[in-house]
Amino acid sequence: VRRLLRQRSARELERRFVIEGAKTLAVALEAGAPVDSVVWAPSRAEGTPAEEVACRAATEGATLHAVSAGVIERVADTVSPQPVLAVSAFVDVELDQLEKSTMLVVCAGVRDPGNAGSVLRSARAAGADGVICCGGSVDIYNPKTVRAAAGSLFHVPVVAGGDTVDVLERIGAWPMQRLGAVARGGADHDRCELGGRVAFVVGNEAHGLETEVGALLDGQVTIPMAAGAESLNVGVAAAVLCFEAARQRRAAEARQRSAAKVGSR
Amino acid sequence: VRRLLRQRSARELERRFVIEGAKTLAVALEAGAPVDSVVWAPSRAEGTPAEEVACRAATEGATLHAVSAGVIERVADTVSPQPVLAVSAFVDVELDQLEKSTMLVVCAGVRDPGNAGSVLRSARAAGADGVICCGGSVDIYNPKTVRAAAGSLFHVPVVAGGDTVDVLERIGAWPMQRLGAVARGGADHDRCELGGRVAFVVGNEAHGLETEVGALLDGQVTIPMAAGAESLNVGVAAAVLCFEAARQRRAAEARQRSAAKVGSR
Repeated sequence: VRRLLRQRSARELERRFVIEGAKTLAVALEAGAPVDSVVWAPSRAEGTPAEEVACRAATEGATLHAVSAGVIERVADTVSPQPVLAVSAFVDVELDQLEKSTMLVVCAGVRDPGNAGSVLRSARAAGADGVICCGGSVDIYNPKTVRAAAGSLFHVPVVAGGDTVDVLERIGAWPMQRLGAVARGGADHDRCELGGRVAFVVGNEAHGLETEVGALLDGQVTIPMAAGAESLNVGVAAAVLCFEAARQRRAAEARQRSAAKVGSR
Repeated sequence: VRRLLRQRSARELERRFVIEGAKTLAVALEAGAPVDSVVWAPSRAEGTPAEEVACRAATEGATLHAVSAGVIERVADTVSPQPVLAVSAFVDVELDQLEKSTMLVVCAGVRDPGNAGSVLRSARAAGADGVICCGGSVDIYNPKTVRAAAGSLFHVPVVAGGDTVDVLERIGAWPMQRLGAVARGGADHDRCELGGRVAFVVGNEAHGLETEVGALLDGQVTIPMAAGAESLNVGVAAAVLCFEAARQRRAAEARQRSAAKVGSR
């Protein structure tokens, strides 16, 4: 477990990762994640959500390993861990499975684990159909990413890895409008037509989108900021873009509904 | 410096706090923050932005303390610190100074330093006129908050401390529409009229808004989420709300401009 938490290479070898804490594990089980074993401290978990979730994992076929209090704290990645850890098989999907999507987020070189998790959480909440982490983005199974995603990893389909150029070529062929998020110089996000099939492409925190990505974009989008403001956190930018797309879609549906009413009079 | 980084009580006693890193310090100086001393490692800073910013602080009257390489790393809060630290007087303002605001964010019990910083950064980028951190919210001078705010602390007026009920009573009297952000059950954010003077009130990460706050709100606002999604990070929620208000205001201005054009024909 410790190795799976600390080393990306160990995770990739076993194609398994660690879920920390009762809350995230409960979401994972609800979503049907392939949890194969649970490590817990019965003496500390009694009467807590950790006990409940461990029992539930067991009834769904996971092996339970009881350890003494203190062991989990020594193994876990978090500073104040909840007394339960679980090991699950990878949950990422193939790019082809996203072919029918109407809203995607492409992380092209997002390096910070917390940011990647934040993108997952926001994309899922805004109703995106999937997230693609490519171009040297952080490992989505990094414990910090899993934690920041707050369970979204199990609810929004995620594609892990791949070359950005390859990914953009393939989703462009579906076809899907590929919009690069840039801090300045793009079209205002609320003036872009986001009701159709759209993929928002967000780049590296420090360097933005790579040059070779530019040729594969159908446009660039910018969230208008107050004068002098430098930039937005990448997770926040993804959230604002996805929620704007969701807003436009709700507004279009409302217009259609009222048009239908008028038509049926 | 170490004490100012580690202890809120030490900061409050001296009414001074620490700015870490060349980038944030540059923003602080540009904004005219009252920086009184700078600790730097000349041997490691040569030719870096840290050297440039230290010199600039000196020309603006700050005392420079040169230390040997390694000292800053031992003192600093960050894991991989940039070789410069500065001490500045507090920059927060009195509530009365926000009286003419058209958009505010009230953090009522936001406990995570990173989240509070994220709220500052997003509010500033979206064009909010101020942020109020009250009701037991985290110290805005916590090093993690200063870092997550990415310089916004020096650009958006911030009120530090105070009782939430008292703050809401006072801003309600200005008058200002006070909208509580709730995960569900409020009016859709894009159907609320946010063009007027508005204060978004965001609550504690785990417990939301306190009950006694409810009576002092003029309404509740909810960001519609995909079915089954649990919640948004508080920094992300503040960003989505502020950018929606900004969008509505831009749209209203555009309508006015085109109406004026039609009128002047």
